[in-house]
Amino acid sequence: MSGRRPLDPTRDARILDAVLELLAESGYVSMTMDAVAARAGVSKATIYRRWRNKREIALAAMTRYHGAQTAWSVDTGTFRGDLLAHVHRFAEVLGGFGGRLAVGLVQARASDPDLLDELDARFSSGARLAPEVVERAVARGEVTAPVDHRLFEEVVASVMFMRWLWRLPLDAAFLAHVVDDLAMPVLHARGKGAS
Amino acid sequence: MSGRRPLDPTRDARILDAVLELLAESGYVSMTMDAVAARAGVSKATIYRRWRNKREIALAAMTRYHGAQTAWSVDTGTFRGDLLAHVHRFAEVLGGFGGRLAVGLVQARASDPDLLDELDARFSSGARLAPEVVERAVARGEVTAPVDHRLFEEVVASVMFMRWLWRLPLDAAFLAHVVDDLAMPVLHARGKGAS
Repeated sequence: MSGRRPLDPTRDARILDAVLELLAESGYVSMTMDAVAARAGVSKATIYRRWRNKREIALAAMTRYHGAQTAWSVDTGTFRGDLLAHVHRFAEVLGGFGGRLAVGLVQARASDPDLLDELDARFSSGARLAPEVVERAVARGEVTAPVDHRLFEEVVASVMFMRWLWRLPLDAAFLAHVVDDLAMPVLHARGKGAS
Repeated sequence: MSGRRPLDPTRDARILDAVLELLAESGYVSMTMDAVAARAGVSKATIYRRWRNKREIALAAMTRYHGAQTAWSVDTGTFRGDLLAHVHRFAEVLGGFGGRLAVGLVQARASDPDLLDELDARFSSGARLAPEVVERAVARGEVTAPVDHRLFEEVVASVMFMRWLWRLPLDAAFLAHVVDDLAMPVLHARGKGAS
């Protein structure tokens, strides 16, 4: 159509940011296209020209969110120190926007299970271990390649997310317990401080 | 008061069962005292004579639910076999009423966090390992006492609940992976079939 306006990437980003905010604030179930339009300051027609429905726009917003996540890396000199810094950082993510967003999405389990099935990155993506952290640990002889980092990420993310979800303590003592008694044995790691 | 009727335990049980059904069907947030009364076939006044509010009746219902759970025990001859049977059974609980009930409760995190704080038994109670399973494993030399069964229960329950919550596969291959690569290393167990 000759009258069709060109796509406006700034406006698209504003709409998807509005979706993320609403998902984190009140969750997927109560999110409406009207609320998205109001929050982004655009008309509903503008939104429907780009996305067909609530599920589609939520998936687009999540893809944008995960694309913006930068791999996080730390070098404390030991594998145990790196893992400890890693779980502390994940606890901060959970205590902030990341945790609220996950709860907002998980609401969809009963009302729109297809949304969860179509998500590319799920709960454990925030617990991803940077490859160089593992490479350095292998080089130092603290761990033997190949490292099952997927199991590590899933286990650590699950235990921490569940504690957060049920409002159980996620303090420094518990995080050290996760590293020493869970992460290190699962990764068959040897290192200072591991039992 | 002389006109007050004696407590009717059958009626109390019917009311608390109605609460559990509603929690599992539509969750804590949308559960109303009207719905509880209608489901149990009693008046709202009857309910309010026993419980002050929604949180109190939900806590009473959960206490009743956990009290009715019998400790589950199995003896396959090996610790690995027992753990495998254990995680298969927990997967069945998750796939049934237990999983729906947990999701219904967790909804309260945003609207009524005190409910979660006051729950005695939380998500991992369904993954509790019977003491005799551990005692037999110690007797057979497959594991060394003391066994950190609380860490085992929390980790296994978290990983499985999270998979179930996000609709990721919980098939036989994954359950064997949980036992061999997660539970056995965490429990420092040696046994047939463990890698």
